[in-house]
Amino acid sequence: MPITANDPQRRSWIQVNKDSDFPIQNIPFGVFLTRDDVITIGTRIGDTAIDLGALHQLGYFEGIPLTDDIFLQDSLNDFISDGKKTWRLVRNRIAEIFDINNPKLKDNEEHRRIVLFTLDEIEMQLPVQIGDYTDFYSSKEHATNVGKMFRDPENALLPNWLHIPVGYHGRSSSIVPSGIPIRRPMGQTLPPGTDTPLFGPSKRVDFELEMAFITTDANQLGEPIPVDEAEDYIFGMVLFNDWSARDIQKWEYVPLGPFLAKNFASSISPWIVTMDALEPFRVAGPKQSPAPLPYLQYSGNKSFDINLEVSLAPENSEPLTICKSNFKYMYWTMAQQLAHHTVNGCNVNSGDMMGSGTISGPTPDSYGSMLELSWSGKKPLKMKDGSERTFIEDGDTVTMKGYCQNNKVRIGFGEVSAKLLPPFSEKKKNGDR
Amino acid sequence: MPITANDPQRRSWIQVNKDSDFPIQNIPFGVFLTRDDVITIGTRIGDTAIDLGALHQLGYFEGIPLTDDIFLQDSLNDFISDGKKTWRLVRNRIAEIFDINNPKLKDNEEHRRIVLFTLDEIEMQLPVQIGDYTDFYSSKEHATNVGKMFRDPENALLPNWLHIPVGYHGRSSSIVPSGIPIRRPMGQTLPPGTDTPLFGPSKRVDFELEMAFITTDANQLGEPIPVDEAEDYIFGMVLFNDWSARDIQKWEYVPLGPFLAKNFASSISPWIVTMDALEPFRVAGPKQSPAPLPYLQYSGNKSFDINLEVSLAPENSEPLTICKSNFKYMYWTMAQQLAHHTVNGCNVNSGDMMGSGTISGPTPDSYGSMLELSWSGKKPLKMKDGSERTFIEDGDTVTMKGYCQNNKVRIGFGEVSAKLLPPFSEKKKNGDR
Repeated sequence: MPITANDPQRRSWIQVNKDSDFPIQNIPFGVFLTRDDVITIGTRIGDTAIDLGALHQLGYFEGIPLTDDIFLQDSLNDFISDGKKTWRLVRNRIAEIFDINNPKLKDNEEHRRIVLFTLDEIEMQLPVQIGDYTDFYSSKEHATNVGKMFRDPENALLPNWLHIPVGYHGRSSSIVPSGIPIRRPMGQTLPPGTDTPLFGPSKRVDFELEMAFITTDANQLGEPIPVDEAEDYIFGMVLFNDWSARDIQKWEYVPLGPFLAKNFASSISPWIVTMDALEPFRVAGPKQSPAPLPYLQYSGNKSFDINLEVSLAPENSEPLTICKSNFKYMYWTMAQQLAHHTVNGCNVNSGDMMGSGTISGPTPDSYGSMLELSWSGKKPLKMKDGSERTFIEDGDTVTMKGYCQNNKVRIGFGEVSAKLLPPFSEKKKNGDR
Repeated sequence: MPITANDPQRRSWIQVNKDSDFPIQNIPFGVFLTRDDVITIGTRIGDTAIDLGALHQLGYFEGIPLTDDIFLQDSLNDFISDGKKTWRLVRNRIAEIFDINNPKLKDNEEHRRIVLFTLDEIEMQLPVQIGDYTDFYSSKEHATNVGKMFRDPENALLPNWLHIPVGYHGRSSSIVPSGIPIRRPMGQTLPPGTDTPLFGPSKRVDFELEMAFITTDANQLGEPIPVDEAEDYIFGMVLFNDWSARDIQKWEYVPLGPFLAKNFASSISPWIVTMDALEPFRVAGPKQSPAPLPYLQYSGNKSFDINLEVSLAPENSEPLTICKSNFKYMYWTMAQQLAHHTVNGCNVNSGDMMGSGTISGPTPDSYGSMLELSWSGKKPLKMKDGSERTFIEDGDTVTMKGYCQNNKVRIGFGEVSAKLLPPFSEKKKNGDR
C-alpha cells in the first residue's frame, strides 16, 4: 500500500507556517485533553490539533476497519495493536481529509467546530501506556566519552560494545510528557576520597539527549523477531530526555547497572511521529566493524537523518543552544536493537518504549549530555545571563527539538521541555512552600 | 481494624488437609478462568477455589465499599488500588463466610454450586498486570558467593552492597504464572580464552529462588515513602523463579547490568498471600552493620520466617530437593527496599512487583541457584535417575515451594513450577516439531 500521505506536493486547507514541524506530510499521533475535559486521540497539522475521536464519530474514517471507540481512549495502545496496515490507512485518510482540494470537512463549519482545536485549548498527555521501557546505549561516541572519563582512556569502549547493542531495562512509571517539571532527586553518593556514603540532593543532575521508539505487539514469548522484519513492529518515534543523576549513578551502578540515578523521571515529546512519515529520511548507518553476528546483519538503509538540538535556559533567562547532534550518528539501528532484544525470546507488546541511549556526535558541540559537554564538570558552559553550568541547576529548563529536512518537506517532532525543581522536603510537603 | 481472619482457632466448613498451604487463615488472592471460560478474581481454601466475583454478585460483601465489578476483572490491580483497609475488610468477611459455624453459604446449595470450584476446573492466570518490575539483590550470602566466583574472593562484596539495597529494573512482559513452560534462550556468549563472541543456545540456564512483593499505589512522582510507612503499600507476596542464563549474563552485563540473561522469562506462583496473613510470622532481620543511612533505619520486626525449597525433576524422573532456604536470611527488608526505591521520588503503582533477589542461606544446601549449588559448574548434583546436573537441562522441571509454620497454623504459597523447553528454531516454528 503506497504511503500517499507522504506526497510532498500536497497542501492543506489548515494554515501551516513554512518552518512548522507539522505539515500535512507529518500527521503524528498523540493523546490530549480537550477544552471540554474529554480525553481523545488526535493528530496535528500546523498549530491546529485534530480530534480523531470526533472525526471517527462523524464518519470520516468510513471503510477503514476500526472499532467505534478506537480513538476515544486515553492511550494509543489499542490503535497501535491494529498494526501497520491500519496505521497507514488512517494516516492516508487524514491526508485526504485535510487536502486543500477536499471540501468535505473544509466547508462544513459545524464539523470543523467539533474537530479542530487551537493548541492552547488542549493539554497533551502521555501518548501510550508504556508497558516496558528499555534503554539502549548505542552511540559509539557517547560510550567512548563515558569510558574515557570513568574507566580507561586507552580502552574506553568495553569489549562487548561492538558486538552487542548494549541495553538495560528502565522504569516506565516515571516517564512523563513534555512540560511536567522534574524534582531534583535525593540519594546516596560517595564523596571522592571517602568510603562512607552521604545522603542528600544529587549535585550532578544531567539530561541525556535521546530518541525513543514505540512498538506494536511483536512476538510471542519464546520467538525472536528477525532483524529485517523488526521495523514492521515500530510505530513511531519521540524525543526523549533521560534525566540522570551522575553522582548517584557512580555509587550505585556496579554491578547491576543504573537504578535510582535514572528512574526519578524521564520526559518524552507528546506527538509520536510515525515511521511512515520518516521514510524519506532514511540513510545508511555507520559502517560496523567488526561485522556483527548474523542475527544482527540487515539489508537496506535503516538509520534516519534527524537533526537534534538541546537548549538550556536558566530561570528568567533566554535559552542557549548547547548541543547539536543527529540521530544518524547512532552505531546500532533500531532494527538491530529490536532483533537483539527479542533474540532470546523476550516478548514485546504494544506501547513498549525503547530509548536510543544518549546521542552524541563526533564533535564536542554535538555531545548529548552535560557530563560530556562539561567533560565531567571540568569545562563549564557559559549561559546567556553570564552564569556558568557544569550540570543542571534548580530552575533551569532543558528543551530538546528534532526535525528532518530535505528540499521538499520538513518533518519534526516538536519539543520535549522540562524544568528542574528543587529537591523534595517534608516542609514543602506540609504546605510551607 | 483487627485482622480477625487470622484467628488460629477458626475452622472452615470447606475441607482442609492438615498439611495444606491454604487453611481458612490464609485467604490468598488470585485470578482464574472458570469452567465456563469466565475470568474472575478468587481465593482458595484447601483444594477449593472460590469465585469472588460471583460471591459479590450474590451479596456476600454487602456493607463493604466495593464497586460492582471489582472482582470481575482479569487482574487484581483495581482491588489492590482500593487499599489496605479494604483488603482487610474483604479478607475478614471471607473468613466469616467460610467459618464452620456460619450456615449462610454452607447451607445454600445453589450458591455453593455457583461459587465453588475444584482445582481441576480452573486455570490460574497472572494475578496482576505488572506495570514495573524491579529485582533486588538483597541476600548477603548470594552476593558474596557470586562475588567470590566472578570477582575477587578476598573482596567478594562490592563497596556499595552494605549501604544500598542494590536493585535494578527487569522486564514485566515475560513474567508468567506457574505451569507455563520456558524456552532455553539463544544469545551471545564469549567462550573462555577467546575475544570473539558466539551465537547459540545458552549452556548455563539457571533458576533463582526468590520471593516478590506486589505493591499498591504508593506515592506521587517526586515524593518518597518513609521506611516505617512502606509496609502499608505492600499487598502481598508470591514465590518467584527469576530464570537466568549465566553465560549470556557474563558477556553482556558490564556496565549496564543483566538484560537478555534475565528477560527471556520469569515465573511466579499464582496466589498472592497477603501481608496480613503473614503477620504471625514476623521476625527480626539480620543485624545490619554498618548501620544504614537514616532513611533506611526502621523499627520493629520487618522480616518474615518463610521456609523455601527448590526441587529439580529431570524429564520422566522424580523431583529431588536441591535447596532449602528461608526468606528471613535476606539482609535488606522489603520496607527498606521500597523506601530506597522511592527515596529519589520514583513513583510506585498498583501491580508493581519487586523481587528479593536470590535467597541463599549460610550453608551450601541453602544456596538459591545452580550457579552456587554447583559452584559455577565445578560440583555437579546427582539426580534421582543417576544423571548429573550443573545447570538446568532441556526437559527439567524446577519447582519452588514456600510456607510459614508455627504451632497453630501453616500459611503457604503453593508452588511455582516450570519446565525448560529446547531452544526456538525456525524449523520448529514451521510445524516440524
